[in-house]
Amino acid sequence: MRDVYLIGAGMSKIGKREETSRELVIEAAKELMNYVDLKSVDAVYVGVQSETYEHQIMYGTMVAEILGLTPKEAYRVEACAAAGALAFRNAVLAVKSGEAEVALAVGVEKMSAVGTENVTDALMAASDFIDQYSGITIPAHYALVARRYMYQYGATEEDFCLVAVKNHKHALDNPKAHFQRAITVEECLRSKPVATPIKLLDSAPISDGVAVAVVASREAAKGHDKIRILASAVATDTLSVSQREDLTWPTAIWEAAQKAYRQAKIEPSQIKLAEVHDAFTINEVLIYEALGFAKRGEGYKLIREGQTYIGGKVAVNTSGGLKARGHPIGATGLAQIYEIFLQLTNRAGKRNVNADIAIAVNEGGVNSTAVVHIFSL
Amino acid sequence: MRDVYLIGAGMSKIGKREETSRELVIEAAKELMNYVDLKSVDAVYVGVQSETYEHQIMYGTMVAEILGLTPKEAYRVEACAAAGALAFRNAVLAVKSGEAEVALAVGVEKMSAVGTENVTDALMAASDFIDQYSGITIPAHYALVARRYMYQYGATEEDFCLVAVKNHKHALDNPKAHFQRAITVEECLRSKPVATPIKLLDSAPISDGVAVAVVASREAAKGHDKIRILASAVATDTLSVSQREDLTWPTAIWEAAQKAYRQAKIEPSQIKLAEVHDAFTINEVLIYEALGFAKRGEGYKLIREGQTYIGGKVAVNTSGGLKARGHPIGATGLAQIYEIFLQLTNRAGKRNVNADIAIAVNEGGVNSTAVVHIFSL
Repeated sequence: MRDVYLIGAGMSKIGKREETSRELVIEAAKELMNYVDLKSVDAVYVGVQSETYEHQIMYGTMVAEILGLTPKEAYRVEACAAAGALAFRNAVLAVKSGEAEVALAVGVEKMSAVGTENVTDALMAASDFIDQYSGITIPAHYALVARRYMYQYGATEEDFCLVAVKNHKHALDNPKAHFQRAITVEECLRSKPVATPIKLLDSAPISDGVAVAVVASREAAKGHDKIRILASAVATDTLSVSQREDLTWPTAIWEAAQKAYRQAKIEPSQIKLAEVHDAFTINEVLIYEALGFAKRGEGYKLIREGQTYIGGKVAVNTSGGLKARGHPIGATGLAQIYEIFLQLTNRAGKRNVNADIAIAVNEGGVNSTAVVHIFSL
Repeated sequence: MRDVYLIGAGMSKIGKREETSRELVIEAAKELMNYVDLKSVDAVYVGVQSETYEHQIMYGTMVAEILGLTPKEAYRVEACAAAGALAFRNAVLAVKSGEAEVALAVGVEKMSAVGTENVTDALMAASDFIDQYSGITIPAHYALVARRYMYQYGATEEDFCLVAVKNHKHALDNPKAHFQRAITVEECLRSKPVATPIKLLDSAPISDGVAVAVVASREAAKGHDKIRILASAVATDTLSVSQREDLTWPTAIWEAAQKAYRQAKIEPSQIKLAEVHDAFTINEVLIYEALGFAKRGEGYKLIREGQTYIGGKVAVNTSGGLKARGHPIGATGLAQIYEIFLQLTNRAGKRNVNADIAIAVNEGGVNSTAVVHIFSL
C-alpha cells in the first residue's frame, strides 16, 4: 500500500466568531495556501457535526465551490465530534487507494449561529435513543463517568481541574486559541456546576472555527513540508455508556490506539506530543490510560505529577486542547492535526516541543467512535 | 491498485414503515446474510441524510452496534440524497486502499418519523443559503429546471409524466417497491401540483427504508457472487442552480459519468441497465443526456419512444426508480446498487433484463453532488 503524508494545514482563529462558516473556510484555506497549491487537490472531505446550526448539510459541495474546486469530488463525513479526524481519515483512504494524489480534509462548525439550548439538543443526537428519552445530556453522561472514576480509583475534582489549568496555560502561547487566559484550580473548583462533578471550567466551550489539512502521496508530497502519516485508525463502542462493562474504560479509544500502534510499529513511550479530546477534563485522564501513558486507573496521577505539561514526560494538548483552544465540534479533529503540523515543522513558536512523533485522538458521542492518527518526521 | 467487487446486497421493504431505522437495518442485513458472513466485515460506512428525522447522528456506530460489529471502524457519510452511493464509494476507498478487505455500505432513512413539513425543511438544508432565504423548496428548484427545459427543447408535461408511467409499470414486478400500482399519463397530468410544472405524480414519495451492499477485495470475494466494480466516481457542481450556465445541464452528473466511463473503459452504448435518480421525472430525462444515452436536449425523445422500458435500448429504473420503488433519501443510492446486484446475478425475477454491464447514478442537492458507479459481470 502507498505511503501517505501530511503536507500542509491551516486554521481560523477559534472562538465566538461573527463570520459565517464560508468565511471561516476561506480564513483557514488562506493559511493552507502557504503550503499547498489548492489547484493540486483532487478530492475534498468535510467533517461537520450538525445541520441545525446553519441549516446546511451539503458542506462538501459548499467547500469545493468556495475554494474553486468544483467539479472535483467532495462530500461530508461525520460521527459528531469525531467528524474532523474522520475527514482526515477519508483523505488518507482516498490517497492510499490511488483515487486521489492530493486530498483536502476540512473541519467546520459554526455553533454560535444558534443558542446554547439548541447546541445541547444537537449534541444529544449523538447519544443512544434510550438515553435521549431519559433526558440525559452529553455533560451528564460524562458526569456519570467522572463520578464512577472517582469512586473506583480515588481521583478528586481537583485532579480533573488540573487538566483545565494545564490546557489554559498551554493556550496562553496559542494566538488562535478561544481562550488566552490562565485559570487556577480554585477558580475551576468554584465555577458553575454543569452536571456535578463536572463544572463550567471542566468543559470545553461552544466555539466557531474551521481547520484544514492536506494528505498527499509520496510523489505529490515532493517539495513540500512532509510529515509521515504512520497510522490512521477508527474504532467504535456501544452508543450508550449503559451498555459498557466499565463506565470508566474508553474501549473505542483503546482499540483505535492499539490498531494505530500496530500500524505505526511504535510504543506509547516513544510519543512526545499528543493532541487529545478533552471535551471534559475527565476524558483527558481516561485518554492517558487508553493510550498507555498511564496504567488503568492511574491517569489522574499523571496530571497530579504535572507529567503532561510542555516539558513533561509527554506534552498533551500543547494547543490548549478542546478546553482552551476551543471546540468547534466538526473542526476539532483537524485543529489537533493542525497543531501537530505546526509542532513537527517547528512552527509552534513558544509552545514548540521539538517532537518527532505525535498522536492525535478525536472522538464522537460519549467515546463511541474514536479516531487515532500517528505522525512522524 | 486493487480490483474491488460487489459480493452481496440487501434491502428492506420500502414504504411508510412502522419500524424504527434499527429494525429496518436488521431487515436489510438479514437478506445480506444470504450472501455475506457479517463477521468478515472490517468497516462500515452509513449514508443518511438528516439528523432531524430520528434526532440521531451516530448512525455509523449505531449500525455497527446493531450488527455486532463494534469495535470495528464505522462512520457516516453524507451529501443529502447522494448519501447511499457515497457510503458505497467509501467502502470502495477502504478496500482499494487495503485498509479493509470487506467493507459494508449501509443507507438509512426513516422519514415518516416526522411530518411532511419537517421533511421539506430538512431537504431545504441541501440547497444554498441564498436559495433557502428566498423560500425556494427543492421541488421548486426542479420546477425551474423543468420549465426552462420545456422552453429550450420543446418537451411537454406529458413527456415527464411518461417517465412516471414507466417507473410505476416496472415497480409492478418489484415486491419491495413503495408503490405497486400502474398509473396513466392522464392521472399524472391531473395530479395535484407540487411546484408547477411538477405534479405529485412527477415526484418521488417520502419513504422509509434501508439498503446495504458489501464491497470486497479479489481475495475476499472468492467463493461469492462477484460483480466487478468497474468505476466509482464523484463530482460536484455549484450548490445553487442560479450559478450555473445552463439550468438544464446537470454538470456534476456529466462529470462523474465521464470519469466513470474513462475508469471503466466503456461507452454509453454498452450499458443495458441503469438505475438513476428520478427524484422528479425531469431529472431522469436530464440523466439520459448526461449519461450519453441521448443528445443534449433530446432526452425526452427517448422516453417518448419508449426506449428506456425493460426491453428497450437501455432499461432505466427496472426497480421502479425513486418514483415507484420509493426514495428513503440516504438509502436510495444503495437501493439502486441492490437492484443492480439482483439483476446481474439473475435474481430480479420478472423484471430481469439479463444485463452484463450496469450503471447507477445517485445525486444530492439539486444535482450539486453526483455519484456514478459502473458494474459488470
